[in-house]
Amino acid sequence: MKGNVIVGQSGGPTCVINSSLAGVYRAAKDLGIERVYGMLHGIKGFINNEYILLDEKLPYNIDIDLLKRTPASYLGSCRYKLPEMTDDPEVYRKIFARLEELEVGYFFYIGGNDSMDTIKKLRDYAESVNSEIRFVGVPKTIDNDLAMTDHTPGFGSAAKYIATTLKELVCDCRIYDCPAVTIVEIMGRNAGWLTASAALVRGEDCEGVDMIFLPEKVFDVDYFMNRVKETVEKKRYCVVALSEGVKLSDGRFVCELASDNAAVDAFGHKMMSGSAKYLENLIRGKLGIKARAIEISTLQRCASHFASLTDIEEAYDCGATAVKAAVEDRETGRVVCMNRISNVPYKITYSTQDVHTIANVEKNVPLEWITEDYITEDAIHYIRPLIQGELNPIMNDGLPRQIRL
Amino acid sequence: MKGNVIVGQSGGPTCVINSSLAGVYRAAKDLGIERVYGMLHGIKGFINNEYILLDEKLPYNIDIDLLKRTPASYLGSCRYKLPEMTDDPEVYRKIFARLEELEVGYFFYIGGNDSMDTIKKLRDYAESVNSEIRFVGVPKTIDNDLAMTDHTPGFGSAAKYIATTLKELVCDCRIYDCPAVTIVEIMGRNAGWLTASAALVRGEDCEGVDMIFLPEKVFDVDYFMNRVKETVEKKRYCVVALSEGVKLSDGRFVCELASDNAAVDAFGHKMMSGSAKYLENLIRGKLGIKARAIEISTLQRCASHFASLTDIEEAYDCGATAVKAAVEDRETGRVVCMNRISNVPYKITYSTQDVHTIANVEKNVPLEWITEDYITEDAIHYIRPLIQGELNPIMNDGLPRQIRL
Repeated sequence: MKGNVIVGQSGGPTCVINSSLAGVYRAAKDLGIERVYGMLHGIKGFINNEYILLDEKLPYNIDIDLLKRTPASYLGSCRYKLPEMTDDPEVYRKIFARLEELEVGYFFYIGGNDSMDTIKKLRDYAESVNSEIRFVGVPKTIDNDLAMTDHTPGFGSAAKYIATTLKELVCDCRIYDCPAVTIVEIMGRNAGWLTASAALVRGEDCEGVDMIFLPEKVFDVDYFMNRVKETVEKKRYCVVALSEGVKLSDGRFVCELASDNAAVDAFGHKMMSGSAKYLENLIRGKLGIKARAIEISTLQRCASHFASLTDIEEAYDCGATAVKAAVEDRETGRVVCMNRISNVPYKITYSTQDVHTIANVEKNVPLEWITEDYITEDAIHYIRPLIQGELNPIMNDGLPRQIRL
Repeated sequence: MKGNVIVGQSGGPTCVINSSLAGVYRAAKDLGIERVYGMLHGIKGFINNEYILLDEKLPYNIDIDLLKRTPASYLGSCRYKLPEMTDDPEVYRKIFARLEELEVGYFFYIGGNDSMDTIKKLRDYAESVNSEIRFVGVPKTIDNDLAMTDHTPGFGSAAKYIATTLKELVCDCRIYDCPAVTIVEIMGRNAGWLTASAALVRGEDCEGVDMIFLPEKVFDVDYFMNRVKETVEKKRYCVVALSEGVKLSDGRFVCELASDNAAVDAFGHKMMSGSAKYLENLIRGKLGIKARAIEISTLQRCASHFASLTDIEEAYDCGATAVKAAVEDRETGRVVCMNRISNVPYKITYSTQDVHTIANVEKNVPLEWITEDYITEDAIHYIRPLIQGELNPIMNDGLPRQIRL
């Protein structure tokens, strides 16, 4: 095959972005590519001449198994948006000069919406200068908010971790005989997919969480308080899954309500707390019920020790599909997508789509899947297959073994 | 054997308190006890006549395996301190009347310091009324702060989860090329054992956390800020493990700097949350560096999906040892203890000790194991054996299967 491969990672971490990297690397080698380079800190690092030769870094088979189990970005990441090529053609000239120098024929970028924007701009520039380099994107985001693909690599593992953690928290919450409310804040500014995964907890061995609130639907504080009061009266304790991005009817985030009575730091700045923390204080103050806010925080995007095997394998296959599309089919300006052709049994196929149709469009949870305080069976059927299976960590002295540069 | 068994669980949840329950139940049945009762919500529930017959609830062998994997208290818990018997003899008469009614010969209580206080008082009352009932305690607490035992069931699993989570967070923290500080707040109001487990993260595949601060040593905010500044200048990012209970030289908790009106819980304890949050704001305001506070919160005491096998087995054996001591050796007023007879290879024995010597004494991390901003190798050698091994969850439809009443 003509030309080397370069691959980069961009945007926020997930559990499986390194599995996609492994998929790209292995497929490239299997298709006879001589050299596979890795950009450090994505395109931003590459502009500054930061890259490595992956062949030197991943000499053993076990390295691939460790990549599949190591969270965050092995190559480092960036949050960097390329300028428009008309605004700053020099950046593009620099990038392409270096790609030519490394004899790169195929460029892969693993990331979310912003990263797909990078693929789009590089491909458009390539066309304008008649470059033969192929540019293909590999999707990634725990938020599951990329359009055109059934779901995104990274989401299934985060959903599995969130559901597992909530199931364990429900055990923790029900043991005392006094009234108590637990509000768990889950990532998702605009898309509620991760919070929706809280619905997976309900089953024959667990009553599940009592309420689920997503950012797609207006959050009514009075309704919430009434439901909490009712639930505690009925069953003593109450567990709520709350998206960090829940908004009021006027568009403000719920946490913005806290600014009036917020604690003040050493500089006199108000310490903004989260939405769950605000509601915790409201419940304690107004209802006189013990309340506790828990933020799962960044743990939900890096908990590789309990990642979904389905997610790990799909992430790998997305990487391999990108390579096949570029190297064998000479595709460019494309993004790998997953298409669910059957839900029972769960089965997907891989394809690519034009990056111009995918970039910068957010996919939210459909409103018809959201009820007043929960989500529907349709949503559960959509999410459930994505959390199936585990890939046991390679343990070493009591902790999961990782790989690092 | 003469008499039935009753067992209760008390205090905060752990991952392995149900493994101790399994150990008590199985040993009782193996020693020929006819009936094994379980108090609901500990001694507080029992006073209100709340109990079940465990033989009816755990008919299958798989129930024992599920108990070993289900966090928190299968029987429910309480935070209840028995009155002194001279202050309220009626409570004692009520308890003993019911025990006689159920023909209980052996009473087991799984819990922390407060629960051992219950064993002590019941045993003393029994002696005063010439009751033959035997009272034996089974230790439990993630905090590892019980005196007289090498360590406590529950600690190893919490330590393993904390170390695993921190190792994954270090991956997450290092991927960007801009300066950033992450402060992870870990449970432990007075004892720093859980926070000390952050030191396990450092190894050949991970640089570990940069600093560790325990409540046993005075926390100097200026020193901390300087160390953060130095570390970020040197290596760009910085990860700190901070005990929720870190205190200033005047004895105030660090989080009290954030506001002078810290809330007080039902026991008059100041509500400990926010030391990391306070320092996050301080770093952002004074050093102008991006900072992020993460509270592992209650997840650290209920994350059964990644519990330590060593811990699960020891918890089980502690339960079984209590039964053997009471039923075979007719002991009473005793607490099961673990004694480390060898560290390499790790080996412990079980014994019992007089509950009068153990109750209400807190065991802290020795000061000689704590450096300015880390802990010593001695501390690591002490903790490391306790996190070894895993007991894979029994998976069902993508999530760990549990057992519940």
